[in-house]
Amino acid sequence: MAEFIRSEGRAADQLRPVRITRHYTVHAEGSVLIEFGGTKVLCTASVEDKVPPHKRGSGEGWVTAEYGMLPRATHKRSDREAAKGKQSGRTQEIQRLIGRSMRAVFDLTLLGERTIQLDCDVIQADGGTRTAAITGAFVAAQDAVNGLLASGKLSQSPIVASVAAISVGVVHGTPLLDLEYTEDSACDTDMNVVMTGAGHFVEVQGTAEGQAFSRTEMNQLLDLAEKGVTELMRLQQEALRNL
Amino acid sequence: MAEFIRSEGRAADQLRPVRITRHYTVHAEGSVLIEFGGTKVLCTASVEDKVPPHKRGSGEGWVTAEYGMLPRATHKRSDREAAKGKQSGRTQEIQRLIGRSMRAVFDLTLLGERTIQLDCDVIQADGGTRTAAITGAFVAAQDAVNGLLASGKLSQSPIVASVAAISVGVVHGTPLLDLEYTEDSACDTDMNVVMTGAGHFVEVQGTAEGQAFSRTEMNQLLDLAEKGVTELMRLQQEALRNL
Amino acid sequence: MAEFIRSEGRAADQLRPVRITRHYTVHAEGSVLIEFGGTKVLCTASVEDKVPPHKRGSGEGWVTAEYGMLPRATHKRSDREAAKGKQSGRTQEIQRLIGRSMRAVFDLTLLGERTIQLDCDVIQADGGTRTAAITGAFVAAQDAVNGLLASGKLSQSPIVASVAAISVGVVHGTPLLDLEYTEDSACDTDMNVVMTGAGHFVEVQGTAEGQAFSRTEMNQLLDLAEKGVTELMRLQQEALRNL
Amino acid sequence: MAEFIRSEGRAADQLRPVRITRHYTVHAEGSVLIEFGGTKVLCTASVEDKVPPHKRGSGEGWVTAEYGMLPRATHKRSDREAAKGKQSGRTQEIQRLIGRSMRAVFDLTLLGERTIQLDCDVIQADGGTRTAAITGAFVAAQDAVNGLLASGKLSQSPIVASVAAISVGVVHGTPLLDLEYTEDSACDTDMNVVMTGAGHFVEVQGTAEGQAFSRTEMNQLLDLAEKGVTELMRLQQEALRNL
Amino acid sequence: MAEFIRSEGRAADQLRPVRITRHYTVHAEGSVLIEFGGTKVLCTASVEDKVPPHKRGSGEGWVTAEYGMLPRATHKRSDREAAKGKQSGRTQEIQRLIGRSMRAVFDLTLLGERTIQLDCDVIQADGGTRTAAITGAFVAAQDAVNGLLASGKLSQSPIVASVAAISVGVVHGTPLLDLEYTEDSACDTDMNVVMTGAGHFVEVQGTAEGQAFSRTEMNQLLDLAEKGVTELMRLQQEALRNL
Amino acid sequence: MAEFIRSEGRAADQLRPVRITRHYTVHAEGSVLIEFGGTKVLCTASVEDKVPPHKRGSGEGWVTAEYGMLPRATHKRSDREAAKGKQSGRTQEIQRLIGRSMRAVFDLTLLGERTIQLDCDVIQADGGTRTAAITGAFVAAQDAVNGLLASGKLSQSPIVASVAAISVGVVHGTPLLDLEYTEDSACDTDMNVVMTGAGHFVEVQGTAEGQAFSRTEMNQLLDLAEKGVTELMRLQQEALRNL
Repeated sequence: MAEFIRSEGRAADQLRPVRITRHYTVHAEGSVLIEFGGTKVLCTASVEDKVPPHKRGSGEGWVTAEYGMLPRATHKRSDREAAKGKQSGRTQEIQRLIGRSMRAVFDLTLLGERTIQLDCDVIQADGGTRTAAITGAFVAAQDAVNGLLASGKLSQSPIVASVAAISVGVVHGTPLLDLEYTEDSACDTDMNVVMTGAGHFVEVQGTAEGQAFSRTEMNQLLDLAEKGVTELMRLQQEALRNL
Repeated sequence: MAEFIRSEGRAADQLRPVRITRHYTVHAEGSVLIEFGGTKVLCTASVEDKVPPHKRGSGEGWVTAEYGMLPRATHKRSDREAAKGKQSGRTQEIQRLIGRSMRAVFDLTLLGERTIQLDCDVIQADGGTRTAAITGAFVAAQDAVNGLLASGKLSQSPIVASVAAISVGVVHGTPLLDLEYTEDSACDTDMNVVMTGAGHFVEVQGTAEGQAFSRTEMNQLLDLAEKGVTELMRLQQEALRNL
Repeated sequence: MAEFIRSEGRAADQLRPVRITRHYTVHAEGSVLIEFGGTKVLCTASVEDKVPPHKRGSGEGWVTAEYGMLPRATHKRSDREAAKGKQSGRTQEIQRLIGRSMRAVFDLTLLGERTIQLDCDVIQADGGTRTAAITGAFVAAQDAVNGLLASGKLSQSPIVASVAAISVGVVHGTPLLDLEYTEDSACDTDMNVVMTGAGHFVEVQGTAEGQAFSRTEMNQLLDLAEKGVTELMRLQQEALRNL
Repeated sequence: MAEFIRSEGRAADQLRPVRITRHYTVHAEGSVLIEFGGTKVLCTASVEDKVPPHKRGSGEGWVTAEYGMLPRATHKRSDREAAKGKQSGRTQEIQRLIGRSMRAVFDLTLLGERTIQLDCDVIQADGGTRTAAITGAFVAAQDAVNGLLASGKLSQSPIVASVAAISVGVVHGTPLLDLEYTEDSACDTDMNVVMTGAGHFVEVQGTAEGQAFSRTEMNQLLDLAEKGVTELMRLQQEALRNL
Repeated sequence: MAEFIRSEGRAADQLRPVRITRHYTVHAEGSVLIEFGGTKVLCTASVEDKVPPHKRGSGEGWVTAEYGMLPRATHKRSDREAAKGKQSGRTQEIQRLIGRSMRAVFDLTLLGERTIQLDCDVIQADGGTRTAAITGAFVAAQDAVNGLLASGKLSQSPIVASVAAISVGVVHGTPLLDLEYTEDSACDTDMNVVMTGAGHFVEVQGTAEGQAFSRTEMNQLLDLAEKGVTELMRLQQEALRNL
Repeated sequence: MAEFIRSEGRAADQLRPVRITRHYTVHAEGSVLIEFGGTKVLCTASVEDKVPPHKRGSGEGWVTAEYGMLPRATHKRSDREAAKGKQSGRTQEIQRLIGRSMRAVFDLTLLGERTIQLDCDVIQADGGTRTAAITGAFVAAQDAVNGLLASGKLSQSPIVASVAAISVGVVHGTPLLDLEYTEDSACDTDMNVVMTGAGHFVEVQGTAEGQAFSRTEMNQLLDLAEKGVTELMRLQQEALRNL
């Protein structure tokens, strides 16, 4: 089968241009606009001095996430969830994934009885919004934690590792890194991989949209994902080094 | 009473710096980021080839609006309306106001059986979000209509006038133009004024937050609003002249 | 343009017959049926020894309102909001207006930690339901406060002024006072004006339904409203003088 | 056991004063205020030229009911169902009962493809609201049908019998007719009985609130109910004879 | 009129085969599968060490019930209530009936501040699900109470009588005991009768689905119900005697 | 690290006893009770002659799933989703997974414009409910398709492969097949794997609950899953061979 040709001559194992803009808005303790090509997600981290009921009195904190998409972030307008009166199953699935991914790198006992609430809102969508959200949310969370350390509210960082995520998929038989929307729509297999700085997996979610996928394809996709996440982590650290 | 001193030495009858960025996102038929100082609202216009039930078969179109605020657009995080499962009374009040304001300058018979859906989402809030939304939504709507004219779907513009809006208020006895958040919180009277290019009123919504206001104060506020809206309309036209 | 002829030979600046019936139902601390012509609204005031969360422990009280319309109060039956599972934007807008209007004449620190809940339910609608509701709710609230004073629960009235409201509008070019339904449907401009006994404004909400309105029309409408509210306040006081 | 003494010297088998006021509001095709002592229910009948999905194309009509209670119809204010976003189980139970009771005396094939919607709204409650609602709704429905006959939309009445309802109960060992609120709260057994003009039962709903009841008590209660319903039907006919 | 012939040669006053299986699932404090012919209801009793707000601090307990039906328990699939976002009026009516029936045989002061929550879920439906649910829920509740007694959490049983329920109805003129689905659909009158071990009534709910019913028919139905409930109580006791 | 000892001496790569009971209830076109040890899920397949809006007129069918858990399927009672008025994020995530898994083995063009609705209701939970649901739902779907073939409504089966699912996880450092509840609660990594009869992957969902997992662990888990799914498919076929 002829290899799939990507837009703008992108290689199969190449990320789209990634941009991480910190301090994008002024009120949040962490505020990051992350761009994976045409996908733009605003990730804010809010620190609140309370925890949900199941953590009250435990001395531990909580980290959680919510996800939303502006109605016209997409090619075709989608209905506003607030107007419909409920979040879709897709939205809930994504925000649960972001929350689990962030908690995987937090030591909640070191956070104290406070909550870091991550809000990931898609301003413009072109595939990979959930992986951009995780990658950006980590930077926002780090900024929020740095603020707590700077103000003396925390003496030790509760963040035990970095975390980032990327999508991979098989499109017309070719394994590709960081799918954009047209690739995502055409793919047979779509996989989202969340990894820590130590190269371990936090989440692997692979779905056969068309054909079921083989163990060999799975291994190719995981190889691509490892490459992509390594690159994303370099970009996260670079962004965090700047003021 | 000593006159109220505004931040950054702003005069009582002076707008905050206004910025109108067209084509802010790529998918919508009109997409405008409007900034009134620290208030930033993304206004998109989506054209859909259908109308709500009460217009079906009428040959007329419809123009409507929805409003939202990102959870951490504000100093303190507010709950996500999609997660709570309903829009607040405030949100509904604002989006009804935006919709009426836009319809006031549309000839729906000239629009044909299509809908222009305006989505106004507050990225960052510092007072005056509803007036910024109306002012920006007009530009987005104009871009969407220009697209319909350019593609030949419309032969005559259904927009019969321009529309813009500004807030005015009495703060510590001083009538002020374009209230920012700290002024809005402290004001006795808060008024939102929506006007057409012809200098007529589309909406006047004045509320005594503290002291009731006199007819004299009302007249001072309307004078300020007329001045502010005239300036906003100049900025709208300037933005629309650029590509 | 020929002047608009009103039903039953009513003058442009004339109220419909107003009737205020106190003690309309027996359980509420205040219970008033107010009629503006064919518009009939039952306004009850309920005193509760608790306050909403944002007032707890503040020593202050709260005054709030809810609004409803019986399904067949109108020409055509409208769906029951309780059955639909939510209040319309219009309902929320009106009940927020009533609540703000009542709080404008209350000193909440004098009320103590209790709530006066005003329920305004439209039994029959013929235009002006929100202004009738505000005018009637004030009488119900006064009755409730009188009860608290009589029983010694309050030693000083928290009511610092009277409040009443009327609609005005421009119909076929003629400014009119107290619009009935057919006038309201035909009007170019519709304005609801809430004023205190001192002749100051609490709320001014003007909307151009058709043509935008000029500053001159605005002034004519405010003149009419002042006249109407003055008359309503005389009727409120008259009603309150009787047992 | 000493016999229970009723308020105002009412006999055990005596109804409270019943008043049926037709044409209480002006818009509905039938509009009846029915009073059983201190219980006041507004029953409107609305005729709509459509039927619910399960009747579409059947040639048959539909009769249905909704029930509501104004928040301060009762001693203590109850939350507004529209604000809470759902009807209580009690409300649904009552409106289903009213609907079944009305359909029991309608020949839906004679009604044609139209709906008679009965709205029963309690203005003031003092026990027996559901039985008052059924008794009043029948009169409103009859008025609506008479209108359809008078206008020639129907040539034959779809109403095949009259229907009325009354509550009975055992209070402190004494079987009583037409319980008022204080009796209802104190009763061991509470029964609502819906009957046709032919003396047959449409609904019998008996509930032991305290002690379970014997077959003998059941028979005493049914005797009382038959007496009460017979009297109510006389009052319905009397009301319908007047203009 | 020829007598109605029942399936499998069942006599008019004969129950369907009844099976009561205790310990059907392992986690609940009481877990009973009850079968009335083809109707199968799983009734679980859960003991919780808390009470609803209206009982807090009272020293009394609470007994309540919820009812559900699996989507394909019936001939035609019905929508899942959890997916629709609300329980139907029918569901609420039934679970309120089960709750009242159970509370009728409980002395809540002897239960202490705990709740027995009964969940009645219909696995397969063939008429009479609510009466099977009541009959089975009593056995589950008894098992839960026996557990509390065995563990010493209670020293005296709060259950003061047994309770069971059966449906009766008039089908084509014949009074029948324990209606199955096809009989229920065809019946003129449908009555659910809940009785205590002492032979007294807890609930009688009779509804004329077609023709209104006479006092004579009512008496015949009550006779049948008494016979049926007596038999059900024998089966409950038999089931409880086994381990 | 010492190897984790499983209950009842189960080997690390051993399934719990699996039981598949077809025709468990009578109304559904497919009805299967599947048991993985103490986990019991009722899976019904309902055939409906309609498709959701996005498939109307396409000539294609649809396969979808819903998932629920009886309130007391678990150790501690969980609130009924129908009573809460919404399905949890977890429920939606699971039912979306089941739906995608089933569609992966259906050729929707061969199904014609009809829907197969799979309802998976957990009667008793002890870990692995979603994988049991997928495995059982396939058998129910096969029964429903066989019925369509037998009745001549379909001439060719739309099922193109079999599908089954199993959970695997790392508990205290040991990779285990088919986690039961206590293992699931203690695990560091939890992975659900859905595979076709051809040995390809439909879904792989791995989550690090505690420690992130290495590529080596991932490979061990996938090996275990392949073994387990192969065994489950043998049991599915065996069950389907019986009448």
